[in-house]
Amino acid sequence: MADDTSSSAFLTDLVSSGHLLPLGADGVYGHGSAFEAIVEGVQQAITERGADQRATSVRLPPVYPAADFARTGYPVSFPHLGGAVFTFRGSEQWCRSSSADAADEAEQDGWTASLGPSDLVLVPAACQPVYALQRGALPAGGRVLDVLAQCFRREPSSDPFRMQTFRQREYVYLGDAAGARTHLDTWRARGVELLREIGLAASPSAASDPFFGRAGRLLAANQRDAGAKTELVVPVPATGTEGKPTSWAVASCNHHGDHFGVSFGISSGGAPAHTACVGFGLERLTLALFGTHGMDPVRWPVSVRKALFL
Amino acid sequence: MADDTSSSAFLTDLVSSGHLLPLGADGVYGHGSAFEAIVEGVQQAITERGADQRATSVRLPPVYPAADFARTGYPVSFPHLGGAVFTFRGSEQWCRSSSADAADEAEQDGWTASLGPSDLVLVPAACQPVYALQRGALPAGGRVLDVLAQCFRREPSSDPFRMQTFRQREYVYLGDAAGARTHLDTWRARGVELLREIGLAASPSAASDPFFGRAGRLLAANQRDAGAKTELVVPVPATGTEGKPTSWAVASCNHHGDHFGVSFGISSGGAPAHTACVGFGLERLTLALFGTHGMDPVRWPVSVRKALFL
Repeated sequence: MADDTSSSAFLTDLVSSGHLLPLGADGVYGHGSAFEAIVEGVQQAITERGADQRATSVRLPPVYPAADFARTGYPVSFPHLGGAVFTFRGSEQWCRSSSADAADEAEQDGWTASLGPSDLVLVPAACQPVYALQRGALPAGGRVLDVLAQCFRREPSSDPFRMQTFRQREYVYLGDAAGARTHLDTWRARGVELLREIGLAASPSAASDPFFGRAGRLLAANQRDAGAKTELVVPVPATGTEGKPTSWAVASCNHHGDHFGVSFGISSGGAPAHTACVGFGLERLTLALFGTHGMDPVRWPVSVRKALFL
Repeated sequence: MADDTSSSAFLTDLVSSGHLLPLGADGVYGHGSAFEAIVEGVQQAITERGADQRATSVRLPPVYPAADFARTGYPVSFPHLGGAVFTFRGSEQWCRSSSADAADEAEQDGWTASLGPSDLVLVPAACQPVYALQRGALPAGGRVLDVLAQCFRREPSSDPFRMQTFRQREYVYLGDAAGARTHLDTWRARGVELLREIGLAASPSAASDPFFGRAGRLLAANQRDAGAKTELVVPVPATGTEGKPTSWAVASCNHHGDHFGVSFGISSGGAPAHTACVGFGLERLTLALFGTHGMDPVRWPVSVRKALFL
């Protein structure tokens, strides 16, 4: 309850400062220019850290084929979080009758009733669409992709840290098991360093994905036991209760084993490839900065501004 | 037919150059780093032209409330182009039965069958979500918004110029009728100038929106007669037949009259506001540049590279 109050005061500040523009649905915001300048600075800071990776840049649209979404297993593990694109199946007759004087709501209901599933879904995590592009044998030493995508997760909430639509920047490794482990070790350390440089007191924390339902709790426990997911969490002073800041995950390091290698026929040295990714949540990171250093970036510490190219 | 062949050769070149990454559905692509650098340059060129507008920057997510989508009249005018976000309505029972050994396709079908309409749709044009943010009285002299959004239109095609998902950058005016007309006159001239500066032989052309069905053809004719829509079209040498380049619209100037003012309760001087927008299609513009100057931006004319900050 007290937590809700502090979240809601933080949201009010973000909105009155012009950083978040509420579009009328929980967790769906436009952004003002200062917010976007911070996102841009965070991206540059990440790019600088990743310069030695010789990564191939992949910039993605927010939708991709439903068939690949199914192949990742996402709809079974996270049915509650996904979003599918439904499009028109109606006839011309439908349109002529609807375009008479119908009220907005009736028009919308008529249109919605005329929709059917398309071959597209919303991207749930930046790396999900890239595995289908990597089918076949990887070069020796593997490959690193630098990926950016707008992601969707169906978690409507009035807490600004829980957006339904947000950007993720990821460095994805595809290769062998040892390479995947090295990638995660490297980026866990780099991520903590980067976050501390911009004034966020980051620390790694064992984590699990929000698998669906009762069976999902077992999957989450297994994932945690295997050490397959680490989040980088930061305390955000503007949120929390009784002087104790709430901590938020702003990045995550994920070991997929050979899950995607097997599902998409990606191989490394004749065996199914192992993959791993580190993902930065660009909106969360930006919110953590506002919630730590205040609403006016001009007054942020000089070292932070410099690290963000402001 | 010949046109298809030239489009397909152009697409092949774009893909083999790493500019477009086909994700496995028509009109849905990832982009490589050179493509994104051009998009960035185009954006900077637009920003420079718009500097005198003192515009408020609005950066949007790819989804927004279905209720506002209905209020614009979009589902009645363009039912065939819209996309709605459907999300999970299933029970925990659903998940447990599906997570048995089902094949990918069956999993996906099961998930799709469990979905229902959410309160969100995909953004069909960059300015559509902003009107709901502008309710009430505008300041004297009106207001200009500088808007960027990822848009969705259900027009699957193997022609790279007809993407389902793409970015639009718009300058939107809200105020009185005279201001709307001035905005369009100003930006029509600026748009042509900007496009010519980057080596595209742009000219304005009377146009209409792709209204749905037989009744829609009448709406389109009315729109054209009223001079409410002008497109900036450019011939693209890499596309076309028998040495004659196909021309593509890369920007459009739209007079909405008081349609959005009335629908969203936006007023100017006590009367419903008039609105107008000029929108640049960032992917189309970038494709037109590749199709005019070639696949390697390093070899583009010096004046073009300079105008694009390359």
